[in-house]
Amino acid sequence: MEDLQSHQDERGVPLDEVGVSGLRYPIRVWDQARERQATVATFEMSVALPQEFKGTHMSRFIEVLEARRGEISLGTLPQLVEELATRLSAPSARVLVKFPYFLERAAPVSGAVALMDYECAFEGRVVTGELGKVADFTLEVTVPVTSLCPCSKAISDYGAHNQRSALSMRVQSVDLSPASMIWIEELVALAERSASAPVYPLLKRADERHVTMQAYDNPVFVEDMVRNVAVQLKEDPRVAWFEVRADNHESIHNHAAFARTSWRREPSG
Amino acid sequence: MEDLQSHQDERGVPLDEVGVSGLRYPIRVWDQARERQATVATFEMSVALPQEFKGTHMSRFIEVLEARRGEISLGTLPQLVEELATRLSAPSARVLVKFPYFLERAAPVSGAVALMDYECAFEGRVVTGELGKVADFTLEVTVPVTSLCPCSKAISDYGAHNQRSALSMRVQSVDLSPASMIWIEELVALAERSASAPVYPLLKRADERHVTMQAYDNPVFVEDMVRNVAVQLKEDPRVAWFEVRADNHESIHNHAAFARTSWRREPSG
Amino acid sequence: MEDLQSHQDERGVPLDEVGVSGLRYPIRVWDQARERQATVATFEMSVALPQEFKGTHMSRFIEVLEARRGEISLGTLPQLVEELATRLSAPSARVLVKFPYFLERAAPVSGAVALMDYECAFEGRVVTGELGKVADFTLEVTVPVTSLCPCSKAISDYGAHNQRSALSMRVQSVDLSPASMIWIEELVALAERSASAPVYPLLKRADERHVTMQAYDNPVFVEDMVRNVAVQLKEDPRVAWFEVRADNHESIHNHAAFARTSWRREPSG
Amino acid sequence: MEDLQSHQDERGVPLDEVGVSGLRYPIRVWDQARERQATVATFEMSVALPQEFKGTHMSRFIEVLEARRGEISLGTLPQLVEELATRLSAPSARVLVKFPYFLERAAPVSGAVALMDYECAFEGRVVTGELGKVADFTLEVTVPVTSLCPCSKAISDYGAHNQRSALSMRVQSVDLSPASMIWIEELVALAERSASAPVYPLLKRADERHVTMQAYDNPVFVEDMVRNVAVQLKEDPRVAWFEVRADNHESIHNHAAFARTSWRREPSG
Repeated sequence: MEDLQSHQDERGVPLDEVGVSGLRYPIRVWDQARERQATVATFEMSVALPQEFKGTHMSRFIEVLEARRGEISLGTLPQLVEELATRLSAPSARVLVKFPYFLERAAPVSGAVALMDYECAFEGRVVTGELGKVADFTLEVTVPVTSLCPCSKAISDYGAHNQRSALSMRVQSVDLSPASMIWIEELVALAERSASAPVYPLLKRADERHVTMQAYDNPVFVEDMVRNVAVQLKEDPRVAWFEVRADNHESIHNHAAFARTSWRREPSG
Repeated sequence: MEDLQSHQDERGVPLDEVGVSGLRYPIRVWDQARERQATVATFEMSVALPQEFKGTHMSRFIEVLEARRGEISLGTLPQLVEELATRLSAPSARVLVKFPYFLERAAPVSGAVALMDYECAFEGRVVTGELGKVADFTLEVTVPVTSLCPCSKAISDYGAHNQRSALSMRVQSVDLSPASMIWIEELVALAERSASAPVYPLLKRADERHVTMQAYDNPVFVEDMVRNVAVQLKEDPRVAWFEVRADNHESIHNHAAFARTSWRREPSG
Repeated sequence: MEDLQSHQDERGVPLDEVGVSGLRYPIRVWDQARERQATVATFEMSVALPQEFKGTHMSRFIEVLEARRGEISLGTLPQLVEELATRLSAPSARVLVKFPYFLERAAPVSGAVALMDYECAFEGRVVTGELGKVADFTLEVTVPVTSLCPCSKAISDYGAHNQRSALSMRVQSVDLSPASMIWIEELVALAERSASAPVYPLLKRADERHVTMQAYDNPVFVEDMVRNVAVQLKEDPRVAWFEVRADNHESIHNHAAFARTSWRREPSG
Repeated sequence: MEDLQSHQDERGVPLDEVGVSGLRYPIRVWDQARERQATVATFEMSVALPQEFKGTHMSRFIEVLEARRGEISLGTLPQLVEELATRLSAPSARVLVKFPYFLERAAPVSGAVALMDYECAFEGRVVTGELGKVADFTLEVTVPVTSLCPCSKAISDYGAHNQRSALSMRVQSVDLSPASMIWIEELVALAERSASAPVYPLLKRADERHVTMQAYDNPVFVEDMVRNVAVQLKEDPRVAWFEVRADNHESIHNHAAFARTSWRREPSG
């Protein structure tokens, strides 16, 4: 049968990305305690297509993924990306894996335990350019938190509006070595101490009292949460680059307030 | 050309609904002040298909809608549904129109004015049964409000968690006469006085102080909001049936809390 | 600390449902081969609230779920619902669990194997009424399939428009005994033979040729798919009730076409 | 009342963006024929926040928008962005406006007319940097089209799988003068002639026959659609930069295939 995709293309247009998206697959992710967690991911996988080729072979993306049957971790994603580039004879490849990740959380007073979900993503890329091959890896974690408005607290005789916020961090390490690895668990903790209070899966009445007062004692603007996270990430020598975004699902408005910043470590001389 | 849809079907399976969904069309809606508001709707339109027909003619749904070029109101939707049933020779027809609706809102202290969006829907049905033809019309309005937790307030030394809630009401009138018509504006007002405080598009500092304390002074559980709405709807003689649902986007959890109830007026003897 | 939720309510409004929604939790589901599959579910859990109680205790929903740590199956969901009703002293309870479910699928010619996702739901209810306690259980499976338009094929000299369709089945068995249990795998197979062709996770060129011609040889309207499924479900003595809906993501329009029917087995005399 | 937002911040973290998102507002857009179309937009509006300020004044975003009551066009958006920067004393500002836009489309044979929706966005930015103030404006249009797979056609004895695709174009002009303005209507036409066939709101049987054969006669891979658009945009002297992405909602898979490329005109010497 004819292999149309391998035909020559004359239009002179290289494609940055060709691939598949919206592909759901079960995966297993290693957590910080070196145990494996089963979850369900949505994949976007692509390669660059040089201008002389008419098309890519989409089925190979699935084959590469299926061959690993979902063993995906911060450690193994770079290999998967590499394999994709090789298998599809492509100069560049990219894999984005989004998944909910669960952590056991204990309520602050009662100690009642349940699981809470955090939306995470791994993104791996390999790019072959003039200076050879470059790989990078980005970890993204979105942490739901409580934020209480400092302005509302300061100007009101009592009370203060507060809401659920989403604090998203995208982080790249200085290198791909195990020593430079940043864990989901670390970013969750960092986000929670940058907000008014954590959000929990299960709170008994004594816990609810605790988080209500904790939030009132720690008011933060959406700008503050982003800055609190940024200051801590800059101080971490493992971090080479980050982007932080906070979204407040305002309790007094029908829209959200947000703030965003990004930073790259200066190359040391 | 062959008209396959008009062929005979032998499987003996009547279909409750056949039609189109996810169809976006600009519409104009009459408001309570008898002025027209331009907005964008998403339509779901269907007819019942008796067991002897192989298919319906989907293009006629669009033709019926296009013929009116988006003049849709509480008053004219019943005619559109009627027309659909006639045009498609169907015993029953249904039209669901979802759209955002905008109201000018003034902030409570500064009086600063801006527009706020409310998600609304009109649903019209006509059904031909053993007792002849029956038509009904349902108005749905979802109102964003603030809710402040009574438990959190009662058990804490200071503060109280609060959040944006969505209060949805679906209402049918006792008949389709103008005197029995219930307006979007009325349901918005009813929802807002059933919650801890309204939500506004634009608040200056003096307004923020006002709504912060208003919410603290009026704590409500998700159950309370539904009941507050229900009590008022029962007392309104125009109301024949309603369903009310409240969803709290909890500021202390990563899930929502909800409550729901429905009611039908007893036929008077 | 004060337990406000247990206070008396005077408004005279019973609530059909009070509970939590949008709660994500990892679960393990038993498949037809009696093996367990790990996936991630979204829960909606509720109880009825009699008119005399002010509120329910939301944290108990999470406790009941956490106690089972995600062991959810067609067999165990009824127990979970029962436990919820008992734990919250409620006359009725409902649990809706939505999750993606994965099956290994082999391509029709090459035999190439990969996993494909099907969106599923279990819904369990227990209701205490005048005649005592009644429980029901509903299985929902949505199967992506290919549909090719019979009209387009019949009236064109060559070609025929086709598209991905979603075929959703909600089924209740005649009783909750193991012999009456209907499996996800059965509904997937039933949906696929009711469409123009199945949809696969991985197709090589020989497979693509096969499914292209298979679809052209089996054209179906959206109405046909619903009827094909309905005919087969009626013939299955385990089935007491079903609702079937098909949605065609039309390749020639920017909206969808859909059809829907429902059926209940007559009580045998 | 205290103005906390104007306080000094000591953390040394400038924010790239602070603002509001998910804000719905009715707007009026000028079309190519110089007539105004009413639609509903979702806004994201932000300014940069220098490191020395604690917060921005969120209510001013709404005031700036409300003052114009929704008069938004390719011509006036740059002024709105400018006004935002001035009003909030910010070095940079950005406004993203997403909205459905409707065009009257006539079916290819019957001439039957109806409205079709296209998802569009305007994005305006002003950035004050070392070289002074720079403004840019991006137009985004997503056009639903039909794509028919060339491989499937070539290897099958009859038929060919096809599907709805979304062809998204983001375009910046060489300058903001009226002569360089690119219209939504132009990008819709360009996308449609780059695909297998257009998608229509209303097709009678003769039209359905026409588009079925048109698609079969013009098979395109997802890669081809992106390249067809790219070739034409490069030849247009008004275009300074573009990004094109195509997504095929595969009729034979449960995932999508996509391709993407971007290009910037070399500064002429």
